[in-house]
Amino acid sequence: MSRFWNPLVADLHPYIPGEQPQFTDILKLNTNELPYGPSPAALEAMKNGCNDALRLYPDPTARELRRVIAATYGTTEDRVFVGNGSDEVLAHAFRALISPDAPMLFADVSYGFYPVYCGLFGQPYREIPLNERFEIDIESYTIPCGGIAIANPNANTGHAVSLDALSRLATLQPDRTIIIDEAYVDFGAESAIRLTEEHDNILVVQTLSKSRALAGLRVGYAIGHPDLIEGLIRVKDSFNSYPLSRLAQAGAAAAIADEGWLEHTTGQVMATRGRFVQRMAGLGFDILPSCANFVLVHHPAHQASTLLAGLRERHIIVRQLSAPRIRDWLRITIGTDEEMNRLIEALASMGLTSR
Amino acid sequence: MSRFWNPLVADLHPYIPGEQPQFTDILKLNTNELPYGPSPAALEAMKNGCNDALRLYPDPTARELRRVIAATYGTTEDRVFVGNGSDEVLAHAFRALISPDAPMLFADVSYGFYPVYCGLFGQPYREIPLNERFEIDIESYTIPCGGIAIANPNANTGHAVSLDALSRLATLQPDRTIIIDEAYVDFGAESAIRLTEEHDNILVVQTLSKSRALAGLRVGYAIGHPDLIEGLIRVKDSFNSYPLSRLAQAGAAAAIADEGWLEHTTGQVMATRGRFVQRMAGLGFDILPSCANFVLVHHPAHQASTLLAGLRERHIIVRQLSAPRIRDWLRITIGTDEEMNRLIEALASMGLTSR
Repeated sequence: MSRFWNPLVADLHPYIPGEQPQFTDILKLNTNELPYGPSPAALEAMKNGCNDALRLYPDPTARELRRVIAATYGTTEDRVFVGNGSDEVLAHAFRALISPDAPMLFADVSYGFYPVYCGLFGQPYREIPLNERFEIDIESYTIPCGGIAIANPNANTGHAVSLDALSRLATLQPDRTIIIDEAYVDFGAESAIRLTEEHDNILVVQTLSKSRALAGLRVGYAIGHPDLIEGLIRVKDSFNSYPLSRLAQAGAAAAIADEGWLEHTTGQVMATRGRFVQRMAGLGFDILPSCANFVLVHHPAHQASTLLAGLRERHIIVRQLSAPRIRDWLRITIGTDEEMNRLIEALASMGLTSR
Repeated sequence: MSRFWNPLVADLHPYIPGEQPQFTDILKLNTNELPYGPSPAALEAMKNGCNDALRLYPDPTARELRRVIAATYGTTEDRVFVGNGSDEVLAHAFRALISPDAPMLFADVSYGFYPVYCGLFGQPYREIPLNERFEIDIESYTIPCGGIAIANPNANTGHAVSLDALSRLATLQPDRTIIIDEAYVDFGAESAIRLTEEHDNILVVQTLSKSRALAGLRVGYAIGHPDLIEGLIRVKDSFNSYPLSRLAQAGAAAAIADEGWLEHTTGQVMATRGRFVQRMAGLGFDILPSCANFVLVHHPAHQASTLLAGLRERHIIVRQLSAPRIRDWLRITIGTDEEMNRLIEALASMGLTSR
């Protein structure tokens, strides 16, 4: 530890994102990016934004982008917050909307950034175990707490909880913020956005990094009661007035407005997922049912680390996660049919074949 | 205050940035943007980046951008940190590198975000008065403290302190981080970057929003000893793994590499500043000597708020700041010669004429 560090810094356990290899002959199935490009309208909007107006600051309130998000999801601008990727939105939500007087709750297998944020903000937390089928049991979140984060579908497992269960939880925890992290919602789950009208304690967070194929642009947003949004704005304006560039605002607005592109590309991913799951089952894998653009898989006869290494030798990168309960599982992003075929062939070359 | 807010949120006093009007017939001289566009090479690099690769996450370490910054400033990549605008870089520096055990020091007239960061992080601070000529007196920063931030040239006044004085301060405060915020350094001051080689406690922060004409892109960076950089990385990786989009990384790298464009455009601004200062003096204004792309002016016979309103009626926006000692001064961004002529003519139409 350097003598210049705030003591807090030495105690941090920063999040370690999935590898971003800089070479191109690799099949990258490790960070849940869409295999298809973003909306052509979004690319066009960004290209048009590459001009001298970049000398000027962007709109610090991103009003036009928030207008498009509100219109798309049938809500109003004052219920929309935007940030530099949903990671930043989540960070502000953990800072602004969780009570430090009691542990925050989230699942023992979920997005690995949640405990990291808590470390940064000195927020106590408690990890609630998934049940034996790796599902979130909403009943275990009704205990006294400082707030709740639920990834839905859950990060790393792909399991989704029902809106009825979330609505019931919001009623049972009326004084605590419930953050619903919907990074993967567009691949087969139902969004809780409509619940935010009846429950003032539900904040839904979404990202453009997965279903909108804009991980490289860094835009995320939150939808909820104006009181929640105001709390986020106060923290944001105490940290960085202008989190979203002009290009990010323009590209994100065009991408969100292009609902046809979203439907088309996510539809293809879901179809591929169905075919891939069947073939993997044929190879003897256990596969968790997934509403996301990844599947978590485990083979009774092959260690995850061995499979990871074998695939890597064949220039295919998948992800092994650190949460203890899934350490012998691999998380595989759903790419195109051709990409998934390449993965199946690689497994075959490693000796895994249909029974 | 909402019942969902962390108690900290209610106590925040968020920064209020200068107005960003959304209409176009306005002469905007209020937020110190460059009147010229960014490097054409930067625009080209960003345009080329508007493609399907945006579906992939950016390099979380921004290695190529850091390499270009290091090469440009004659240092090494491990001494360079990048962030989503220098506001974010400063926020991480205030969080990571300042000791909470003693008040942080900065000037009573300086960048208005410094006390805001302290509010967010619970960092005590003490504002050190500028001297009667509105200059930073480095000797008053040698008292026990948790760290120091000096804007050089100073925000809102334009006054620059010498590298000798900064070097002496670094020696007298060997265990405290000294953040040198060089947002305006390219308009006539000398950078402290070379001091970071001999002083492990100096962190220099720069931005692409002013001299590089990329306020709309949101990129800033810090240069200093690897221990300081590591502290920043630990906080960044506990907050947002991917703060810079692919477009921001590509555009910033090309802009920084284009040193000729920087020299040309900042040279024009400095020449215009010289001519403008002379004409304003002719109108009876007091003008602080400025090494920045703005001047702070005061008229003995006309209140700042009256001038502000009169200019606004004529569609010219300048900035009145809230720091008590400069409340009757106006900060005017240096635009093109034509723009400054329009301002002078507007003042003439308000009854201010050459003596």
